[in-house]
Amino acid sequence: MEKRISGHTGLMGLFGTPVGHSGSPAMYNFSFQHDGLDYVYLAFDVNVEQMPKTFETIRLLKMRGGNFTMPCKNIAAELVDKLSPAAEIIGACNVFVNDDGIITGHITDGIGFVKNMESNDVTVKGKKVVVLGAGGAATAIQVQLALEGAEEVHIFNRKDEFYERAENTKAKLQEKCPDCIVTVHDLSDSQKLAEAVNNCDIVVNATIIGMKPQDDRILIDKSLFRKDLVVADAVYNPEKTMMILEAEKAGCKAIGGKGMLLQQGAVNYELFVGKKMPLEEYRRFQAENQ
Amino acid sequence: MEKRISGHTGLMGLFGTPVGHSGSPAMYNFSFQHDGLDYVYLAFDVNVEQMPKTFETIRLLKMRGGNFTMPCKNIAAELVDKLSPAAEIIGACNVFVNDDGIITGHITDGIGFVKNMESNDVTVKGKKVVVLGAGGAATAIQVQLALEGAEEVHIFNRKDEFYERAENTKAKLQEKCPDCIVTVHDLSDSQKLAEAVNNCDIVVNATIIGMKPQDDRILIDKSLFRKDLVVADAVYNPEKTMMILEAEKAGCKAIGGKGMLLQQGAVNYELFVGKKMPLEEYRRFQAENQ
Repeated sequence: MEKRISGHTGLMGLFGTPVGHSGSPAMYNFSFQHDGLDYVYLAFDVNVEQMPKTFETIRLLKMRGGNFTMPCKNIAAELVDKLSPAAEIIGACNVFVNDDGIITGHITDGIGFVKNMESNDVTVKGKKVVVLGAGGAATAIQVQLALEGAEEVHIFNRKDEFYERAENTKAKLQEKCPDCIVTVHDLSDSQKLAEAVNNCDIVVNATIIGMKPQDDRILIDKSLFRKDLVVADAVYNPEKTMMILEAEKAGCKAIGGKGMLLQQGAVNYELFVGKKMPLEEYRRFQAENQ
Repeated sequence: MEKRISGHTGLMGLFGTPVGHSGSPAMYNFSFQHDGLDYVYLAFDVNVEQMPKTFETIRLLKMRGGNFTMPCKNIAAELVDKLSPAAEIIGACNVFVNDDGIITGHITDGIGFVKNMESNDVTVKGKKVVVLGAGGAATAIQVQLALEGAEEVHIFNRKDEFYERAENTKAKLQEKCPDCIVTVHDLSDSQKLAEAVNNCDIVVNATIIGMKPQDDRILIDKSLFRKDLVVADAVYNPEKTMMILEAEKAGCKAIGGKGMLLQQGAVNYELFVGKKMPLEEYRRFQAENQ
């Protein structure tokens, strides 16, 4: 029987909508219990209009930290007291840390992506990267690539409402990371895309294309996959998207999104409690309890 | 390893100050886990001024229920949407239940007291009772005794700032429970007290006299204890106060405060989740883990 929760146990949590499906409570609670840390992590369904009250709640309950997810990441960046450099460029945050009432917003999707690449022996510094998408995760990845010293970042997106965000990211990066070449192109320009993929080291899908149960589509023509290309996907469900499966077939180094999610969680955990997350133990626990 | 907390787990909790020492998180979390109910119960340190924000938090996080403790029980009664009959008479609540946004305040100290008497085969209906004290717990016991049909309730308190509250309780009970005779006396009038104890069936200490580590004082002269007198104490730490020990020596039925606390918890639990609390299982768990 559970003995770990007492009158001293602190609350952390995830805010956004929907959140019921989130794996974050399981992962952080496992880690707190593993490390003997006196916190509980829950998920709370709140919308954008409720975010000012959410911040009052965070302060009232003295929550040490937590996360924001869709659609609350942008408004969160306006409500925190301070922002990390990446969160300031992006204007969004998925993590908050509360230091005695001073709340700092961070964005860690991009850091999770880079750490997952590193854990697969891929460095991004000096590399040419094609990133598909201009949503929240895509933008975080593009900004982090530039901050980590990627040589070129080529953004491809449909001419939808996010295209302007891609142009905006390019403008901000030209100011903050002038050494990184950033370009923006229409995803439907397949000739331009083929050319960019042929000239790059890494191609990343940061759209939701390939996500379960939606589709098994793939945005990159598989004929473009070559042995020395690294193919990465931000989609983690299924663990191997059609893009990852085809890239593996073609002999590429193919890196799925699951590791990015876990690495991001580990970065968040370290921000919350100043300790490495027991990532391998959690992977094992998950495998045993599936 | 803990598996019970997910993205769907609901929050309940205790609000007041101080709360770190509270046994409520342990008791309710044990019971939720025992019954397979998807809630977590935490304690939050808030003061009276923070109570309006606390109510916004309860609504924002869709907390199903929880408790208020000192010094927040009175302000809570002003902030709820509805009050139980006892909570309305007393003007305080220690329990809230949130039915889809409608928050009802209850006060269960008195019900816990009566249930604990019943579980010791003592009925209060038709009885003459002396109650020492006029604080929150004392008032709740006096009101519940009247609501449950006690014939006489004689309140003894020092002439301090709570004496007026005792007079006020008397006035309210005369209006709401006209069949119950209620009197108020100065606790220092030892002749009056001796007379009242000699004529009553049950004497209750609802002051903090006898509480650990403060003192081993006793407000009733032990020469007044007789075999057919029931002696009850609201103090639960120590489990047997000096009053309970002396009453036992004199051959009285002596009932300590621990059972009142547990019975009150069980009443609260039933208000929260509509089920009997696994009280015996929790007692056993406590005994095994002391």
